Amino acid sequence: MEPFNPVEHPHRRYNPLTGQWVLVSPHRAKRPWQGAQETPAKQSLPEHDPECYLCPGNTRVTGDTNPNYTGTHVFTNDFAALMPNTPDAAENPGSLFRCQSARGTSRVICFSPDHSKTLPELTLEALEGVIRTWQEQTADLGRTYPWVQVFENKGAAMGCSNPHPHGQVWANSFLPNEAAREDEHQWTWLTQHGSSMLVDYARQEMNDGSRTVVETQHWLAVVPYWAAWPFETLLLPKAPTQRLTDLSPEQHKDLAVALKKLTSRYDNLFQCSFPYSMGWHGAPFNGEDNSHWQLHAHFYPPLLRSATVRKFMVGYEMLAETQRDLTAEQAAERLRAVSDIHFRESGE
Amino acid sequence: MEPFNPVEHPHRRYNPLTGQWVLVSPHRAKRPWQGAQETPAKQSLPEHDPECYLCPGNTRVTGDTNPNYTGTHVFTNDFAALMPNTPDAAENPGSLFRCQSARGTSRVICFSPDHSKTLPELTLEALEGVIRTWQEQTADLGRTYPWVQVFENKGAAMGCSNPHPHGQVWANSFLPNEAAREDEHQWTWLTQHGSSMLVDYARQEMNDGSRTVVETQHWLAVVPYWAAWPFETLLLPKAPTQRLTDLSPEQHKDLAVALKKLTSRYDNLFQCSFPYSMGWHGAPFNGEDNSHWQLHAHFYPPLLRSATVRKFMVGYEMLAETQRDLTAEQAAERLRAVSDIHFRESGE
Ligand SMILES: O=P(O)(O)O[C@H]1O[C@H](CO)[C@@H](O)[C@H](O)[C@H]1O
Ligand SMILES: O=P(O)(O)O[C@H]1O[C@H](CO)[C@@H](O)[C@H](O)[C@H]1O
Repeated sequence: MEPFNPVEHPHRRYNPLTGQWVLVSPHRAKRPWQGAQETPAKQSLPEHDPECYLCPGNTRVTGDTNPNYTGTHVFTNDFAALMPNTPDAAENPGSLFRCQSARGTSRVICFSPDHSKTLPELTLEALEGVIRTWQEQTADLGRTYPWVQVFENKGAAMGCSNPHPHGQVWANSFLPNEAAREDEHQWTWLTQHGSSMLVDYARQEMNDGSRTVVETQHWLAVVPYWAAWPFETLLLPKAPTQRLTDLSPEQHKDLAVALKKLTSRYDNLFQCSFPYSMGWHGAPFNGEDNSHWQLHAHFYPPLLRSATVRKFMVGYEMLAETQRDLTAEQAAERLRAVSDIHFRESGE
Repeated sequence: MEPFNPVEHPHRRYNPLTGQWVLVSPHRAKRPWQGAQETPAKQSLPEHDPECYLCPGNTRVTGDTNPNYTGTHVFTNDFAALMPNTPDAAENPGSLFRCQSARGTSRVICFSPDHSKTLPELTLEALEGVIRTWQEQTADLGRTYPWVQVFENKGAAMGCSNPHPHGQVWANSFLPNEAAREDEHQWTWLTQHGSSMLVDYARQEMNDGSRTVVETQHWLAVVPYWAAWPFETLLLPKAPTQRLTDLSPEQHKDLAVALKKLTSRYDNLFQCSFPYSMGWHGAPFNGEDNSHWQLHAHFYPPLLRSATVRKFMVGYEMLAETQRDLTAEQAAERLRAVSDIHFRESGE
């Protein structure tokens, strides 16, 4: 029998953060595609769109008017999935019909007054402002809620209904599934190894290099060994850091650089505004010892082959296991092969 | 404080099959939608399409020619995600870079020679033939592999690249994530309660009725209490049954009836060919005592408000927790409110 070769042979890789496996079928990237095509985002948008409910000075569906903001702007989602005052529910532990009351809030974060710019096209100063807003929201909501989820859905393929650059922050009175899993797996690692899982991981990835996409002085972005989405990345600080609110001034400034480089590589890959969902995971605000936690961001972009052909996580994936068609190393290589200067800025 | 009301207040529900929670935000169904629109499937297709690689007599991209089949037709996927002869890989247990060799196969199952018909439009006899094929494939692959995943991706929204009625069967040398979770949770329930979780569940749902969508002599389809997708259903036999291959002749015949009614209600809801991913979970072929297992099918349809507006499982869902905008009971009520005779057949 020929020896196992991860570039040729189907295999599973283990995600130590969640305890889940992913099926990797590297030979499958060759199959032709006859299915749905995504509609890429319009290539040029106005700086101000009178129809946009996020642009400065415009009126929203609720009748509220946005201020003439110049940096970021935060407001409570007009159709929030969570409310602060939900009464308690009977929980029925042990039954097959278990329910729990959920309290929280959902806010929208406009990244810029400029309707036409996405993260990679913002200046470093503007990106530092976005990071500051993420920090302020995390600190503010962390005073009341144990979990604060900062995230961005970008592009129509990711259910985003408005191209105006914006993200969200949802706060929860509970630890959501993904947070609970990462909490448990990081904790087990610390008790078994005496070190933080993701600090160990970042060091090992820096030594290896084959999955590195962006490395700055304080930050590392890799296609994680266990990536599920074709060009998924994990962005994390090199030094132990529990939360967005714990960044040093140097880490803060350098994160703007890393974000700009990473999102520029994404856009450059298929010369389009690259859709993704991204978000931050940091230690919960639960008053416990969280030395097992290392801050990180996940980027989950759906595109697979081009600006119009995405990966579908459907039948087998929903019923059995996540499956991917190229290895993490192949994805990282392709992201490294394009420039870290955005294609719209490279002419300047 | 007003009392908790599940139709008004955000809450979480627990999925006892997987151990995961889902966030339910019933008040949110009112929000307007300005995002991506799905393209509904063409309303009329020819019975035979010379361009279709699944129609009888046509030639596939590999050069193979399909036989002139009259019932179902099974062949090995031309771009299979799994291969039978993958060599063993070094597993590195305890490391952050854990890998496992994966063996298996992927086959395509054409449900009918008629390019224009989907499951609800097949005759009961043809549906019995589809079930027989699922059984034969399960029995055949179960001789070699511990897990046999029968599934169908239907519609462009679910990554299906060809409207010709077809499903797939993937066999695995390992228990995939979802199978492992359901195995564990069903096993724990049996040891704690001395009964099968899903047999208990079906009985309780029949007594309640508020989540029932279809009930036949031997089968029950409900929007499960913990449904994630807006109109998700769980289809299961009323009597203890471990696998598709264990169906009695009566259960087999009656399953065709239940499938036709359920998929007809789906199509009738928005008067379109309702996209979904569905698949069967039954006891693994691992030679162990599987008395904790009860056979069931999951239907995961993405549509939320109309034939063109779907639910996106994106930012918050990927990073934190699945979220839905209507309760399971509301979804079941809407599916019960439409006919169980397909809109194209009701005129006949
Ligand atoms: O095999 P198909 O139908 O070409 O592919 C479809 O189903 C597979 C199994 O769920 C997925 O992995 C693919 O992403 C999807 O496009
Ligand atoms: O709040 P939005 O942007 O309107 O909605 C989008 O993001 C939410 C959070 O991930 C999802 O629940 C919705 O399905 C999606 O359409």
